[in-house]
Amino acid sequence: MDLYYSPMACSLAARIVCIEAGLAVTMLRTDLGNKRVEGASEGALLQYNGMGKVPTLVCDDGHVLTENVAVLLYLGDRADSALGLTPPHGTPERYEVVRWLAFVATEIHKRVLATVYSLDRPSDAVKAFARSTAAQPLTVLQKHLRDREVLVGEEFTVADAYLVWALLLLPRAQVPMDSYPALGDYLARNSNRAAVRAAVQRELEEYRVPGWWTAKQLE
Amino acid sequence: MDLYYSPMACSLAARIVCIEAGLAVTMLRTDLGNKRVEGASEGALLQYNGMGKVPTLVCDDGHVLTENVAVLLYLGDRADSALGLTPPHGTPERYEVVRWLAFVATEIHKRVLATVYSLDRPSDAVKAFARSTAAQPLTVLQKHLRDREVLVGEEFTVADAYLVWALLLLPRAQVPMDSYPALGDYLARNSNRAAVRAAVQRELEEYRVPGWWTAKQLE
Repeated sequence: MDLYYSPMACSLAARIVCIEAGLAVTMLRTDLGNKRVEGASEGALLQYNGMGKVPTLVCDDGHVLTENVAVLLYLGDRADSALGLTPPHGTPERYEVVRWLAFVATEIHKRVLATVYSLDRPSDAVKAFARSTAAQPLTVLQKHLRDREVLVGEEFTVADAYLVWALLLLPRAQVPMDSYPALGDYLARNSNRAAVRAAVQRELEEYRVPGWWTAKQLE
Repeated sequence: MDLYYSPMACSLAARIVCIEAGLAVTMLRTDLGNKRVEGASEGALLQYNGMGKVPTLVCDDGHVLTENVAVLLYLGDRADSALGLTPPHGTPERYEVVRWLAFVATEIHKRVLATVYSLDRPSDAVKAFARSTAAQPLTVLQKHLRDREVLVGEEFTVADAYLVWALLLLPRAQVPMDSYPALGDYLARNSNRAAVRAAVQRELEEYRVPGWWTAKQLE
């Protein structure tokens, strides 16, 4: 499989799942600013994904998947089911994982992070409004995670991979996190997972490579 | 099952799927402005969904689902599989449906419609930025639907129910749609489905009930 990613973009969640699952995936580094893919010809990403976004996954059979919710479910389903990255099809837990994937995707990623980090140069007022919408979903998450280790059941799932990424970025996006101690605990706990540590360390290093990166700086 | 909805909100997609599937669902009308649910006690919705949003689905076994992506998949899976509202688990088509559900949820619903119709009173500049982000996903959809009847395969799926709702609202949200004739054709075609017609007619009538509705006017 080929996975188009960009350092510290939401494709980090897909990298975490690939490492957790031990999947053999070729990671193709993409500059979201100019859509260039390292070692690939011009337009390599856009031929697969008209949004020019990551993660974009080209499966071994040529099937292309975009949108983190779908990509993460697909990758989790490729793993040994004993790992529990995705619950079995049709179970209440499966729908629960889809629910939290969608929650992170819509309420936190798109409404907040995608606007603050937009390459379309939103004004400060637009960014401030986006940040202001974070309080409600973060309050819901804080309540949900106050007495849970993970979002669904007892195992780290693909939904946790996505939320970990979002929680890493929120403080950098200047969203105050002091009111959500359960989220801080959750992030600290899950950041200690070997797959999360490896993925974050790798992408933070890449992110800091001078000269390569044209997109808006994360830090 | 109990389905909390609000007239012409994105829960319309869930109503369409319920009608397509012939599911027995109690529809609970919710005023998103004050979170009151008709015929229910104060806080009826918030006890199930801290976001106070619709659709919120309380299944017969008491399990609660939120987020349209999860609710629509669950409802589609309750239908006779011959209807094709959701493809079988684990198939490429299943991931494709999840992909387009997530695409509508993130790129159109949250980035555009949720901001334009936000009850948090965004400024005109914030709304204008939200509208400006619609062009890219609509261009992707226009290309995808130029020679297809539906989003995935040959059958109307839950992803189409969600997109039909979004396309109904975009012109009302002052997003110009003239550049996307394939989307106009797609909407006209799918609006002729009996379930879509019935759902839209019902909710547009409810939306117009004077005095009941405190939320921001749709039209």
